[in-house]
Amino acid sequence: MSLPTRYDWKKLQDFCANVFSAAGVKKEVADVVADSLIQADLRGVESHGVVRTAIYLKRIEQDMIDPFAEVEIENESVATALVNGKNQFGSVVGTKALEVAIKKAKENGAALVGVKGSNHFGTGAYYALKAIEQEMILLVVSNASQTMPPTGGIRPFIGTNPLAVGVPAGKEEPFIMDMATSLVARGKIIVAAQKGESIPLGWAIDKGGNPTTDAEAALEGSVLPMGGPKGYAISMFIDILAGVLTGAGFGKYVNNMYENWEEPQNVGHFFIAIDIKKFIPIELFKQRMDQYICEIKAEPKAPNVEEIFIPGELEHRKVIEKKTNGIELPLKVVQELQKIGERYGLDITQAQITLNTEEVTNNG
Amino acid sequence: MSLPTRYDWKKLQDFCANVFSAAGVKKEVADVVADSLIQADLRGVESHGVVRTAIYLKRIEQDMIDPFAEVEIENESVATALVNGKNQFGSVVGTKALEVAIKKAKENGAALVGVKGSNHFGTGAYYALKAIEQEMILLVVSNASQTMPPTGGIRPFIGTNPLAVGVPAGKEEPFIMDMATSLVARGKIIVAAQKGESIPLGWAIDKGGNPTTDAEAALEGSVLPMGGPKGYAISMFIDILAGVLTGAGFGKYVNNMYENWEEPQNVGHFFIAIDIKKFIPIELFKQRMDQYICEIKAEPKAPNVEEIFIPGELEHRKVIEKKTNGIELPLKVVQELQKIGERYGLDITQAQITLNTEEVTNNG
Repeated sequence: MSLPTRYDWKKLQDFCANVFSAAGVKKEVADVVADSLIQADLRGVESHGVVRTAIYLKRIEQDMIDPFAEVEIENESVATALVNGKNQFGSVVGTKALEVAIKKAKENGAALVGVKGSNHFGTGAYYALKAIEQEMILLVVSNASQTMPPTGGIRPFIGTNPLAVGVPAGKEEPFIMDMATSLVARGKIIVAAQKGESIPLGWAIDKGGNPTTDAEAALEGSVLPMGGPKGYAISMFIDILAGVLTGAGFGKYVNNMYENWEEPQNVGHFFIAIDIKKFIPIELFKQRMDQYICEIKAEPKAPNVEEIFIPGELEHRKVIEKKTNGIELPLKVVQELQKIGERYGLDITQAQITLNTEEVTNNG
Repeated sequence: MSLPTRYDWKKLQDFCANVFSAAGVKKEVADVVADSLIQADLRGVESHGVVRTAIYLKRIEQDMIDPFAEVEIENESVATALVNGKNQFGSVVGTKALEVAIKKAKENGAALVGVKGSNHFGTGAYYALKAIEQEMILLVVSNASQTMPPTGGIRPFIGTNPLAVGVPAGKEEPFIMDMATSLVARGKIIVAAQKGESIPLGWAIDKGGNPTTDAEAALEGSVLPMGGPKGYAISMFIDILAGVLTGAGFGKYVNNMYENWEEPQNVGHFFIAIDIKKFIPIELFKQRMDQYICEIKAEPKAPNVEEIFIPGELEHRKVIEKKTNGIELPLKVVQELQKIGERYGLDITQAQITLNTEEVTNNG
């Protein structure tokens, strides 16, 4: 099969949104989900990109996600809210929770919003970027289904519960940190497995508790936390905030998106939004951020290091590059999307990038 | 010299408080500082314990800490406050900021308190424990003077900026996480250097950027972040919250407590207090925490692992053990404290533990 593997980001986003719409999802929901997937691909986080279209669709079809649910604020105080996602798409629930957090933070200086009844919400950076547009600092965490053992354990108990932060700067690019609490993101092991590649020793143990370089065996076993007991503690704290405190699942009660077809995931999230200007004037803050970033980047470099990067900087460059040159997808993913498209009379090849730079620029 | 090396925690705390009082510090300030040091020793974090008495005293004497300063709320909104420590002792500033955070969180559900103009504030666990007494979740971070390179750098730029969390449970011990963002706490390397011990490879690089097992060389060089770029990103975020956002020092503008005798440290902290019952009923939360903790502890264990621990559990056991059997101090530390005591007519040997178990219990 000679399918193209490089796609125009905007057309690919339309293709995904059209797929979800054709599957019966309301336009505003389909748009958010497609936006969230494409933003991940643009940032080079392909594990959270359009590769997830198939599993998301399957979960709607099996009634494991409810794309018609109305996300609700279940209770609130001046600076807090508890949002019930009612099993809507995670990115839609997360977007709503973020709106609540930002609104309350603008009114009161800061807001903490817990979320239960959600699903996988995509990348944390997606929300961080939206908060930065509002000149807010955002800290967002989510729990996830079991993939890492506690320190001293041998099988998955906690998720690779991710932690993301967005901080605006002035002339410099914003600070955007988005990480799993495992040594490496489980998504990277999924990608390795899909590509048939092996993984470095130390990333994971197999289901018998033995170190492994086999990506498939690692997916059946446990991913290891970053920094050993430190990563275990941080991941557990995220589970407490996102799960124990909100009423969502925690530990084994967060269901696996790929394996559990009996019950919704019941993922929990937790958003902390901070209105910078309640502390110091926003212009002063931006100036201090720029100074901080410039001073770090000017540090002496280790041999063979060309540049010192700020968290989020590499991803920002990838966005620019992919908006210009297109998003490159593995053939396996393209084939899957093409098959999905065929069910709804949609053709992914229509989204292939046009090599005329001018037109790419118009689309970008 | 045949000085005793095991001390009754309460008498040792009195000795320290009396030393600070004799040095001219107000009783309420001396009490907080001594309490903070002893709590660290009790939890086995000896690097943050009474070993710091000498440096704290020296900084008062050299006008590098102002023990008479009145800590101020410089500005506030409904859910935030900015506290100016006015160069008071870090533990006194931190205690005041925590009070503000808890009061506001009780009123509004959550509060974020930034702090500037502070000094080294001891262990984060000290504040976490106080928040737990109030049935609050606390997340507290502090920046620190330069000890770690950015990823790709070769010399210290950011501090080992610590991160601490306290979460109450029901029948189980609370969750208390307190970590440096370095692979290991710099305090551990200080202790190794004091004991003349070497350190494992991977903890640090020397001032030339080379890996080292020499604790002294490591102290002159850089400690490495946990999880490589992940620890670098987390530490940088802490510096942003505690330093850039508050108006405190950040990066190279946080002065070294041991080396800089020209200017105050200008350390920054950031406290996030969360009123649990604004999310779910406190009894339900405690029940969920107990369930979570019990389920983790019941996990199958790796070979040679006797027990799976919850963050803070080992430290809690140390507190019980040390309250019974006394705090064991290195002879070098005892000699230093004895010398300090002599200047003020105080005798540390009076604080040695009595071997009569009954009396120890009465004191504990």
